[in-house]
Amino acid sequence: MSVLRSGGVLYGVGLGPGDPELVTVKAVRLVGAAPVVAYFAKRTRESHARRIAQAYLRPGCEELLLAYPMTTERPFYQPEYVEALRGFYAESAERIARFLEQGRDVALLCEGDPLLYGSFMHIFVRLKGRFRTEICAGVSGMSGCFAAAKQPMTWGDDVLTVAPATLDEEILAGRLAGADAAVVMKLGGNFPKLRRVLSRLGLVERAIYVERGTMADQKIMPFAEKLDDSAPYFSMVLSPGKGRRP
Amino acid sequence: MSVLRSGGVLYGVGLGPGDPELVTVKAVRLVGAAPVVAYFAKRTRESHARRIAQAYLRPGCEELLLAYPMTTERPFYQPEYVEALRGFYAESAERIARFLEQGRDVALLCEGDPLLYGSFMHIFVRLKGRFRTEICAGVSGMSGCFAAAKQPMTWGDDVLTVAPATLDEEILAGRLAGADAAVVMKLGGNFPKLRRVLSRLGLVERAIYVERGTMADQKIMPFAEKLDDSAPYFSMVLSPGKGRRP
Repeated sequence: MSVLRSGGVLYGVGLGPGDPELVTVKAVRLVGAAPVVAYFAKRTRESHARRIAQAYLRPGCEELLLAYPMTTERPFYQPEYVEALRGFYAESAERIARFLEQGRDVALLCEGDPLLYGSFMHIFVRLKGRFRTEICAGVSGMSGCFAAAKQPMTWGDDVLTVAPATLDEEILAGRLAGADAAVVMKLGGNFPKLRRVLSRLGLVERAIYVERGTMADQKIMPFAEKLDDSAPYFSMVLSPGKGRRP
Repeated sequence: MSVLRSGGVLYGVGLGPGDPELVTVKAVRLVGAAPVVAYFAKRTRESHARRIAQAYLRPGCEELLLAYPMTTERPFYQPEYVEALRGFYAESAERIARFLEQGRDVALLCEGDPLLYGSFMHIFVRLKGRFRTEICAGVSGMSGCFAAAKQPMTWGDDVLTVAPATLDEEILAGRLAGADAAVVMKLGGNFPKLRRVLSRLGLVERAIYVERGTMADQKIMPFAEKLDDSAPYFSMVLSPGKGRRP
């Protein structure tokens, strides 16, 4: 596999849930050594991942901004949306590949855990056959939120269900109905739907709303006290397990 | 709540999946500042958490070993087991409380994420009303295993199910049957049961076996190539999601 032995290494670096102190020692080392860092961002926004990594970047490193072609997530069944995303990931992978071909390592900065719903995965599957790759685990967004809310989540034999609020209402309700402990992510515009589902399942009293957990402006409250339906994409709802406790 | 303002602070410090470099910058700071560190261990073994934290401990810090009263996990329906564990956690909490009452902070060292199946939770619920507490999120054992196996886990609308192999066989099969992506933890002596469940559900070809992920002696292999039934407690099986990929 000589093709994999030449060229730079693609690092997928998990940077944790938002607090720059929740970056791992390994991620600090990788980011500090990387001649090139790449990161995703919405066109209109600063990159969350870059903000977390800011203090650890190698001075003078080259930066590659990968700006999503749309500003809000749209339903996946729209073919033009899927096509636009596919083109965007293919082009982003090629932009990264150009550095790797020159023998320069690239650290792709990832919020949370790179392998849970991460944009990194779309680059990884496109490049892993051509270049050497390394992945550095990070504190997931949900683990950050558990700690920020000081909320034990799974006890004993509890099963944890992690579901995106982007699911169809009936499917979401079905998945949460069987859960001992649950985390619902990707709230944003799906909040009213999630509220209906939690009400129907009798989970409103148990649930906790966490917005921008571990960041300086985090908000944490019982779901029952969350009266409006406005929630950023970086918010989640926790429904703790009630398993055995000796 | 003046009682909460006096006394030391109990820190629950997540230390990640095993590789000492996967400890966060915050955990390094907290462990390095703690005058007292406490950790759980089986009677016959070294503490995993202490081994991860070793290089970061404050020289001369006081150490409090909390040794489980039994060496293997037993079925929870045995009342004498539950009683023994209850007594152990109550006594451990009191041993920690004695330091806190003297105004000394205690860092309780936790493998992985302190709030996912963590022994820390049993101490936390016993002491949180009496003392100030802080929890530092860590990289979970499963996030460490995803990265060690370089395995993307959830795509798009995938739902992730995290289940302990300690569950009854029929219940475990039922929970995994509905999963898009799944993680099964706490293997140990439950391995033959898990093998039967995965075979029945047609998941053997998709599943990956990860033993001691991120540690120096990690083993990672397709589940189909895992021929024996021996698995340590610190092993898990990953079944990746197949959700949408633009």
